[in-house]
Amino acid sequence: MTFKINSKFLKSSYFITELSLCIIRLHDNSKFPWLILIPKRKNKNDISELNSKDQLLLIKEIVFVSNCMKKLFKTSKLNVEKIGNIVPQLHIHIISRSKKDETWPLSVWVTKGKSYSKRSAVKLIEKIRNSIKKKR
Amino acid sequence: MTFKINSKFLKSSYFITELSLCIIRLHDNSKFPWLILIPKRKNKNDISELNSKDQLLLIKEIVFVSNCMKKLFKTSKLNVEKIGNIVPQLHIHIISRSKKDETWPLSVWVTKGKSYSKRSAVKLIEKIRNSIKKKR
Repeated sequence: MTFKINSKFLKSSYFITELSLCIIRLHDNSKFPWLILIPKRKNKNDISELNSKDQLLLIKEIVFVSNCMKKLFKTSKLNVEKIGNIVPQLHIHIISRSKKDETWPLSVWVTKGKSYSKRSAVKLIEKIRNSIKKKR
Repeated sequence: MTFKINSKFLKSSYFITELSLCIIRLHDNSKFPWLILIPKRKNKNDISELNSKDQLLLIKEIVFVSNCMKKLFKTSKLNVEKIGNIVPQLHIHIISRSKKDETWPLSVWVTKGKSYSKRSAVKLIEKIRNSIKKKR
Protein backbone atom coordinates (compact mmCIF):
# COMPACT_ATOMS: atom_id res chain seq x y z
CA MET A 1 0.00 0.00 0.00
CA THR A 2 1.35 3.42 -0.90
CA PHE A 3 1.08 6.57 1.19
CA LYS A 4 -2.38 8.14 1.25
CA ILE A 5 -3.68 11.30 2.85
CA ASN A 6 -6.58 10.73 5.23
CA SER A 7 -9.76 11.86 3.48
CA LYS A 8 -10.64 14.20 6.37
CA PHE A 9 -7.68 16.42 5.42
CA LEU A 10 -8.93 16.60 1.85
CA LYS A 11 -12.22 18.01 3.10
CA SER A 12 -10.86 20.41 5.71
CA SER A 13 -7.76 21.84 4.02
CA TYR A 14 -6.25 22.98 0.70
CA PHE A 15 -3.11 21.66 -0.97
CA ILE A 16 -0.25 24.18 -1.03
CA THR A 17 2.89 22.32 -2.07
CA GLU A 18 5.20 19.54 -0.98
CA LEU A 19 8.70 19.42 0.49
CA SER A 20 11.05 16.39 0.72
CA LEU A 21 9.20 14.87 3.66
CA CYS A 22 5.92 16.73 4.06
CA ILE A 23 2.89 17.78 2.11
CA ILE A 24 1.84 21.29 3.13
CA ARG A 25 -1.84 22.16 3.30
CA LEU A 26 -3.79 25.25 4.38
CA HIS A 27 -6.27 24.42 7.13
CA ASP A 28 -9.66 25.83 6.17
CA ASN A 29 -10.13 28.12 9.16
CA SER A 30 -10.11 31.80 8.37
CA LYS A 31 -9.75 32.72 12.06
CA PHE A 32 -6.03 31.89 12.08
CA PRO A 33 -3.31 31.52 9.38
CA TRP A 34 -2.85 27.77 9.83
CA LEU A 35 -0.73 25.30 7.86
CA ILE A 36 -0.56 21.54 8.24
CA LEU A 37 2.54 19.45 7.49
CA ILE A 38 1.83 15.81 6.66
CA PRO A 39 4.87 13.51 6.33
CA LYS A 40 4.58 11.33 3.21
CA ARG A 41 5.10 8.12 5.12
CA LYS A 42 2.50 5.42 5.55
CA ASN A 43 1.25 4.14 8.90
CA LYS A 44 2.86 6.85 11.04
CA ASN A 45 0.90 8.31 13.93
CA ASP A 46 3.63 9.82 16.08
CA ILE A 47 6.92 11.70 15.57
CA SER A 48 8.72 8.90 17.42
CA GLU A 49 7.59 6.42 14.75
CA LEU A 50 9.56 8.20 12.01
CA ASN A 51 13.09 6.94 11.37
CA SER A 52 15.98 9.18 12.50
CA LYS A 53 16.53 10.64 9.05
CA ASP A 54 12.87 11.61 8.74
CA GLN A 55 12.85 13.08 12.26
CA LEU A 56 15.63 15.45 11.20
CA LEU A 57 13.84 16.29 7.96
CA LEU A 58 10.69 16.99 9.96
CA ILE A 59 12.32 19.52 12.28
CA LYS A 60 14.01 21.20 9.30
CA GLU A 61 10.71 21.48 7.45
CA ILE A 62 8.95 22.77 10.58
CA VAL A 63 11.61 25.50 10.86
CA PHE A 64 11.42 26.26 7.13
CA VAL A 65 7.62 26.67 7.19
CA SER A 66 7.83 28.58 10.49
CA ASN A 67 10.20 31.11 8.93
CA CYS A 68 7.92 31.53 5.90
CA MET A 69 4.91 32.10 8.16
CA LYS A 70 6.70 34.56 10.45
CA LYS A 71 7.54 36.69 7.45
CA LEU A 72 4.25 36.27 5.62
CA PHE A 73 1.95 36.91 8.56
CA LYS A 74 4.27 39.37 10.32
CA THR A 75 4.40 37.54 13.62
CA SER A 76 6.97 35.85 15.81
CA LYS A 77 4.28 33.93 17.66
CA LEU A 78 3.72 30.43 16.33
CA ASN A 79 1.93 27.44 17.78
CA VAL A 80 3.46 24.18 16.55
CA GLU A 81 1.38 21.17 17.50
CA LYS A 82 1.23 17.46 16.92
CA ILE A 83 -2.16 16.35 18.23
CA GLY A 84 -3.82 13.67 16.10
CA ASN A 85 -6.59 12.72 18.52
CA ILE A 86 -9.26 12.84 15.82
CA VAL A 87 -7.21 12.09 12.68
CA PRO A 88 -4.38 9.78 13.85
CA GLN A 89 -2.27 10.10 10.67
CA LEU A 90 0.86 12.03 11.69
CA HIS A 91 0.50 15.75 10.98
CA ILE A 92 1.85 18.95 12.48
CA HIS A 93 -0.17 22.13 12.84
CA ILE A 94 1.72 25.41 12.47
CA ILE A 95 -0.49 28.33 13.43
CA SER A 96 0.36 32.04 13.31
CA ARG A 97 -0.93 33.75 16.41
CA SER A 98 -1.55 37.41 17.09
CA LYS A 99 -2.61 39.30 20.17
CA LYS A 100 -5.63 40.41 18.17
CA ASP A 101 -6.87 36.94 17.22
CA GLU A 102 -10.10 35.54 18.60
CA THR A 103 -8.75 33.28 21.33
CA TRP A 104 -5.41 34.90 22.30
CA PRO A 105 -3.72 34.00 24.64
CA LEU A 106 -5.72 30.79 24.77
CA SER A 107 -5.34 27.84 22.44
CA VAL A 108 -6.94 27.82 18.98
CA TRP A 109 -8.83 24.72 20.09
CA VAL A 110 -11.20 26.59 22.39
CA THR A 111 -13.23 28.01 19.49
CA LYS A 112 -14.96 26.62 16.40
CA GLY A 113 -13.43 27.20 12.98
CA LYS A 114 -14.80 29.37 10.17
CA SER A 115 -14.18 28.44 6.52
CA TYR A 116 -12.55 30.81 4.02
CA SER A 117 -14.62 32.14 1.17
CA LYS A 118 -13.48 30.51 -2.08
CA ARG A 119 -11.99 33.82 -3.24
CA SER A 120 -9.99 34.41 -0.04
CA ALA A 121 -8.75 30.84 -0.05
CA VAL A 122 -7.45 31.06 -3.63
CA LYS A 123 -5.72 34.37 -2.91
CA LEU A 124 -4.10 33.14 0.30
CA ILE A 125 -2.93 29.85 -1.23
CA GLU A 126 -1.19 31.80 -3.99
CA LYS A 127 0.47 34.09 -1.46
CA ILE A 128 1.75 31.17 0.63
CA ARG A 129 2.97 29.26 -2.45
CA ASN A 130 4.96 32.26 -3.61
CA SER A 131 6.49 32.79 -0.20
CA ILE A 132 7.58 29.14 -0.01
CA LYS A 133 8.98 29.23 -3.55
CA LYS A 134 11.08 32.30 -2.72
CA LYS A 135 12.53 30.77 0.44
CA ARG A 136 13.52 27.47 -1.16
CA MET B 1 23.10 36.92 31.39
CA THR B 2 22.93 33.18 31.85
CA PHE B 3 19.97 30.95 31.05
CA LYS B 4 17.10 31.18 33.54
CA ILE B 5 13.83 29.32 33.77
CA ASN B 6 10.77 31.57 33.79
CA SER B 7 9.44 31.71 37.35
CA LYS B 8 5.97 30.60 36.21
CA PHE B 9 7.37 27.15 35.40
CA LEU B 10 8.84 26.89 38.89
CA LYS B 11 5.38 27.39 40.36
CA SER B 12 3.44 25.17 37.97
CA SER B 13 5.78 22.20 37.47
CA TYR B 14 8.31 19.92 39.17
CA PHE B 15 11.93 19.33 38.13
CA ILE B 16 12.56 15.82 36.79
CA THR B 17 16.01 15.82 35.19
CA GLU B 18 17.98 17.40 32.38
CA LEU B 19 19.22 16.17 29.01
CA SER B 20 21.89 17.78 26.77
CA LEU B 21 19.56 20.49 25.50
CA CYS B 22 16.45 20.44 27.67
CA ILE B 23 15.38 20.54 31.26
CA ILE B 24 12.48 18.16 31.84
CA ARG B 25 9.71 19.10 34.25
CA LEU B 26 6.42 17.50 35.28
CA HIS B 27 3.51 19.86 34.69
CA ASP B 28 1.39 19.98 37.84
CA ASN B 29 -1.86 18.76 36.35
CA SER B 30 -3.01 15.38 37.60
CA LYS B 31 -5.60 15.08 34.81
CA PHE B 32 -2.95 14.14 32.21
CA PRO B 33 0.62 12.73 32.40
CA TRP B 34 2.33 15.87 31.10
CA LEU B 35 6.02 16.70 30.73
CA ILE B 36 7.59 19.98 29.65
CA LEU B 37 10.92 20.25 27.83
CA ILE B 38 12.68 23.58 28.22
CA PRO B 39 15.80 24.14 26.07
CA LYS B 40 18.62 25.59 28.19
CA ARG B 41 19.17 28.51 25.84
CA LYS B 42 18.53 32.13 26.70
CA ASN B 43 16.19 34.44 24.79
CA LYS B 44 14.56 31.73 22.66
CA ASN B 45 10.82 31.87 22.06
CA ASP B 46 10.42 29.69 18.98
CA ILE B 47 11.90 26.47 17.59
CA SER B 48 13.08 28.43 14.53
CA GLU B 49 15.26 30.62 16.78
CA LEU B 50 17.41 27.66 17.87
CA ASN B 51 20.57 27.05 15.83
CA SER B 52 20.58 23.98 13.54
CA LYS B 53 22.48 21.83 16.01
CA ASP B 54 20.01 22.60 18.78
CA GLN B 55 17.05 21.98 16.44
CA LEU B 56 18.34 18.45 15.88
CA LEU B 57 18.97 17.93 19.58
CA LEU B 58 15.43 19.11 20.26
CA ILE B 59 13.77 16.59 17.96
CA LYS B 60 15.97 13.82 19.37
CA GLU B 61 15.02 14.73 22.93
CA ILE B 62 11.33 14.99 21.99
CA VAL B 63 11.54 11.46 20.56
CA PHE B 64 13.48 10.20 23.58
CA VAL B 65 10.94 11.59 26.07
CA SER B 66 8.06 10.43 23.83
CA ASN B 67 9.36 6.86 23.92
CA CYS B 68 9.74 6.99 27.71
CA MET B 69 6.18 8.26 28.10
CA LYS B 70 4.67 5.74 25.69
CA LYS B 71 6.16 2.93 27.77
CA LEU B 72 5.51 4.46 31.17
CA PHE B 73 1.92 5.48 30.58
CA LYS B 74 1.07 2.60 28.23
CA THR B 75 -0.15 4.74 25.38
CA SER B 76 0.79 5.46 21.80
CA LYS B 77 -1.19 8.70 21.80
CA LEU B 78 0.92 11.76 22.51
CA ASN B 79 0.24 15.43 22.04
CA VAL B 80 3.47 17.35 21.38
CA GLU B 81 2.94 21.10 21.47
CA LYS B 82 4.93 24.29 21.31
CA ILE B 83 2.51 27.04 22.33
CA GLY B 84 4.11 29.74 24.50
CA ASN B 85 1.27 32.27 24.31
CA ILE B 86 1.32 32.88 28.05
CA VAL B 87 4.95 32.04 28.92
CA PRO B 88 6.97 32.97 25.80
CA GLN B 89 10.18 31.15 26.86
CA LEU B 90 10.55 28.23 24.42
CA HIS B 91 9.10 25.02 25.88
CA ILE B 92 7.51 21.90 24.47
CA HIS B 93 4.59 20.12 26.09
CA ILE B 94 4.47 16.33 25.74
CA ILE B 95 1.18 14.98 27.00
CA SER B 96 0.09 11.33 27.21
CA ARG B 97 -3.48 10.99 26.06
CA SER B 98 -5.96 8.22 26.64
CA LYS B 99 -9.46 7.58 25.37
CA LYS B 100 -10.53 7.64 29.02
CA ASP B 101 -9.10 11.05 29.90
CA GLU B 102 -11.34 13.99 30.70
CA THR B 103 -11.25 15.83 27.39
CA TRP B 104 -10.58 13.08 24.82
CA PRO B 105 -10.64 13.53 21.82
CA LEU B 106 -10.48 17.28 22.44
CA SER B 107 -7.38 19.24 23.38
CA VAL B 108 -6.13 19.34 26.98
CA TRP B 109 -6.58 23.11 26.82
CA VAL B 110 -10.38 22.97 26.98
CA THR B 111 -10.40 22.13 30.69
CA LYS B 112 -8.83 23.57 33.85
CA GLY B 113 -5.94 21.74 35.50
CA LYS B 114 -5.95 19.95 38.87
CA SER B 115 -2.77 19.82 40.99
CA TYR B 116 -1.24 16.56 42.21
CA SER B 117 -1.27 15.81 45.92
CA LYS B 118 2.26 16.13 47.29
CA ARG B 119 2.41 12.36 47.77
CA SER B 120 1.31 11.51 44.22
CA ALA B 121 3.71 14.06 42.77
CA VAL B 122 6.72 12.63 44.64
CA LYS B 123 5.80 9.08 43.58
CA LEU B 124 5.28 10.00 39.93
CA ILE B 125 8.48 12.07 39.70
CA GLU B 126 10.45 9.08 41.00
CA LYS B 127 8.77 6.79 38.45
CA ILE B 128 9.54 9.13 35.54
CA ARG B 129 13.15 9.68 36.67
CA ASN B 130 13.75 5.93 36.80
CA SER B 131 12.23 5.42 33.38
CA ILE B 132 14.44 8.12 31.87
CA LYS B 133 17.54 6.73 33.60
CA LYS B 134 16.87 3.24 32.19
CA LYS B 135 16.40 4.52 28.65
CA ARG B 136 19.57 6.62 28.55
